[in-house]
Amino acid sequence: MSTHENRAAAFRQYVKKMVSYNQALAVLHWDKNTQAPKKGMDARSEIIGVLAGEQFRLATSKEMEEHLEALSEPAALESLDEVTRATVLDCKKDFERNKKIPADRYEEFVVLTSQAETVWEEARAKNDFSMFRPYLERIVGFQLEFVDYWGFDGKNKYNTLLDLYEPGMTVDQLDPIFATLREKTVKLVAAIADSPNKPDSSFLNKHFPEAEQEAFSRFILEKIGYDFQAGRMDRSVHPFCTSFNPGDVRITTRFDPNDFNNALFSCIHEAGHAMYEQNIDPRLMGTTLCDGTSMGIHESQSRYWENMIGRSRPFWNHFYADLQKQFPSQFEGVSVEQLYRAINRVTPSFIRTEADELTYNLHVMIRYEIEKGLINQTIEVGDLPAIWNEKMKEYLGIVPETDTLGVLQDIHWAGGSFGYFPTYSLGNVYAAQFTHVMQQQISGYEDLIANGEFGPIREWLKKNIHQYGKMKSPGEIVKAITGEGTNATYLMNYLEKKFSEIYSL
Amino acid sequence: MSTHENRAAAFRQYVKKMVSYNQALAVLHWDKNTQAPKKGMDARSEIIGVLAGEQFRLATSKEMEEHLEALSEPAALESLDEVTRATVLDCKKDFERNKKIPADRYEEFVVLTSQAETVWEEARAKNDFSMFRPYLERIVGFQLEFVDYWGFDGKNKYNTLLDLYEPGMTVDQLDPIFATLREKTVKLVAAIADSPNKPDSSFLNKHFPEAEQEAFSRFILEKIGYDFQAGRMDRSVHPFCTSFNPGDVRITTRFDPNDFNNALFSCIHEAGHAMYEQNIDPRLMGTTLCDGTSMGIHESQSRYWENMIGRSRPFWNHFYADLQKQFPSQFEGVSVEQLYRAINRVTPSFIRTEADELTYNLHVMIRYEIEKGLINQTIEVGDLPAIWNEKMKEYLGIVPETDTLGVLQDIHWAGGSFGYFPTYSLGNVYAAQFTHVMQQQISGYEDLIANGEFGPIREWLKKNIHQYGKMKSPGEIVKAITGEGTNATYLMNYLEKKFSEIYSL
Repeated sequence: MSTHENRAAAFRQYVKKMVSYNQALAVLHWDKNTQAPKKGMDARSEIIGVLAGEQFRLATSKEMEEHLEALSEPAALESLDEVTRATVLDCKKDFERNKKIPADRYEEFVVLTSQAETVWEEARAKNDFSMFRPYLERIVGFQLEFVDYWGFDGKNKYNTLLDLYEPGMTVDQLDPIFATLREKTVKLVAAIADSPNKPDSSFLNKHFPEAEQEAFSRFILEKIGYDFQAGRMDRSVHPFCTSFNPGDVRITTRFDPNDFNNALFSCIHEAGHAMYEQNIDPRLMGTTLCDGTSMGIHESQSRYWENMIGRSRPFWNHFYADLQKQFPSQFEGVSVEQLYRAINRVTPSFIRTEADELTYNLHVMIRYEIEKGLINQTIEVGDLPAIWNEKMKEYLGIVPETDTLGVLQDIHWAGGSFGYFPTYSLGNVYAAQFTHVMQQQISGYEDLIANGEFGPIREWLKKNIHQYGKMKSPGEIVKAITGEGTNATYLMNYLEKKFSEIYSL
Repeated sequence: MSTHENRAAAFRQYVKKMVSYNQALAVLHWDKNTQAPKKGMDARSEIIGVLAGEQFRLATSKEMEEHLEALSEPAALESLDEVTRATVLDCKKDFERNKKIPADRYEEFVVLTSQAETVWEEARAKNDFSMFRPYLERIVGFQLEFVDYWGFDGKNKYNTLLDLYEPGMTVDQLDPIFATLREKTVKLVAAIADSPNKPDSSFLNKHFPEAEQEAFSRFILEKIGYDFQAGRMDRSVHPFCTSFNPGDVRITTRFDPNDFNNALFSCIHEAGHAMYEQNIDPRLMGTTLCDGTSMGIHESQSRYWENMIGRSRPFWNHFYADLQKQFPSQFEGVSVEQLYRAINRVTPSFIRTEADELTYNLHVMIRYEIEKGLINQTIEVGDLPAIWNEKMKEYLGIVPETDTLGVLQDIHWAGGSFGYFPTYSLGNVYAAQFTHVMQQQISGYEDLIANGEFGPIREWLKKNIHQYGKMKSPGEIVKAITGEGTNATYLMNYLEKKFSEIYSL
């Protein structure tokens, strides 16, 4: 073997070890959130801390640095197979990002966010923003400090943070997207509010026993193609999806026996995430590339299955008979059209995670605008409650009576995640762009859904998105599929068509 | 801080890291055996391999050696608190054992046993000992080689292997124990075979739905004091108990809907193991001492709860009403005396894991005698099938028609475990010794069981056994409780009394 080959083999072995820690940690977290008896929690958290520390040490070690230096030489890089080359570049980006932050500052930040999450929980419970404020101020301070360490593109400091979650995404791209969403959605929501033709959704709040909801959810997940031989579904307080490897991608859910419009769609959402991970090319296993390429592309998969499929008319034309069979009394006398309209009811509300498909993006936008302001220092933490409520009034026409229902509702800022929120709306935007292309490229697209046949759709998603893992950037995925960049027009066209019809606008 | 104190703190930190790997590995194994979807198995096994390698590296590193050398100095050892001192001695024993085996030989052994387990499975399925024979010969060869590396006490090479599972145990102690068991049990089994007064156990093979068996098992486990807030019960192919920390000790089981005399007692057995681990002193957490002190003492706890409690008359005098409530039709017309006799029916059989309380030790003895012969090179692997069948004939009066039901039934030898089997009978011996003392020290011992009140018994076990973890050796535990050494008389007295009465001998 040549020197390069020896080095590459050693590097791959090293990365595989590092990835093993990630996967073990994922199992420990999954178990903690689904299964673990409470008396073992403290010891579990300590183990997670120890292994996470080891993983970080591996990612930032002298040995890693030497591997990356040697393999980043043009001649070496040239000599590598494409997977190893992409792994080198991916690890290099991570390594440099980690290296630029002084270890003691990073540790302080980790401790701060851990404390802040606890304080945030209490502040939210007590509706007391002033408790949380000093923590959030320090966290924002750290974000600015990190941006200083990392540098920025000279255009907008927030771009550096966006890149953490959506590589390549910038304010220059996001501003026009949110401008489109803002303008058209606010109008549409106002028109809906004025519509006399509102769906009745009261029957969704009849009694739906948990076991029966679970049985029906499992039935639907099997139909859409979540592979239970490569995953499982459990209960947790907050639904999530976690991947250990493409052969073991698990989802969780929770059931509200008095709300049908919740668990099933949450299950489909998480299964959308999971099918992405289940279909990553197995040759990426053991590398850092065996993962979704960005939060936005990941969210495009969950939102696609949840909304574009799960809340579509053809889907329920096919599955409503099964639903009625599972819940005969609950849906007695309810037509499939009534069901379709009920599950798509639009109601401005305070909590993002409970928002309907249309108003959801307005919730995200408020956070985007605030984060951009905080990072560019045009907004101060102390003003957040007032700013929050103004924006709620402006975009959604309602104002929360408490900060608990307002600025304190999300955990993201307490955890130090800035730049994450926009990816939720990017997911919707991407999903609509992909749907537009699928309608052209997959013959009989609507009929497939109406027949409950999702094989060709899954194949398309696998071929164009899933298989690549992190081998392609989100920008490359979007460009290759659509021939253009990120474009919110498709989402707004889809939403306007769907909701104009439902509300007879 | 003094140099010793600095060193001790660094050592404790190091051990805590090492123990974290053990605990993470335990979670990964538990998940693999209870939960994991099959498509993710290969990747899971690889991760386990990586982390186990890291754990071994930590246990045998230069850094560990330096800690142990420094802290083993008399002055240093003297300066340590008792937990750190015991941890040093425990790690030292392990370190020296590991260091004496050349790394390449150990790796070959690991690969060999991994292959041998696969071959053994096939050989057992095909009833073909000749397939397995060359692997077993090599494994026995490795045992002899390891004994050479480790050295032995000059009395018996097998002692070195016994010490792996039951520290301090020797052939000199075991031979008289098994002599007592052999002499008295064989006679008793023969008398039982001649007894005209055999219990009818046919009602135990009525239909017992799995969910109802599970409900009743959970009910009983709560009553005897397994803490579900510090554990959980799941399904697996082979029942086991695994501890992550005293706050998280899990058990598994399986249910046969056509055999009541199985799952419940298996659950009680595993809960016996689990209550040991749940009651270890929390100050041993994060050290290597937070574990049962030996396989034999561990088995004494499982067998005590399974047999001395779970298959006792006062236990069922109390719980039979609950059992009848759970399974009214199955136990219609069956008296508590009939139940008691049925669950204690003695029948010589081929498979150790299915053996009754009395004949079980004969199965263990056969393996003990064979292992002793193999390690002292008085028996050859090629002769095992014939030797096995001779001993079955001699002790149990029956001969298996196939090696599948004979010499090929256990996985232990394929996995390279020699010296483990005797601990199964030691568990029974210890349990009877402990019971004898409990009857003297716990006032109203029998009445407590007859009232379903197990608190005082659990407290006694915790105070005398559980709390110590590995702080006391098995010999110290036995001596402190009984004032004497290991003694099979108590077990035989108990068995003779119990079965003479059941069979009216």
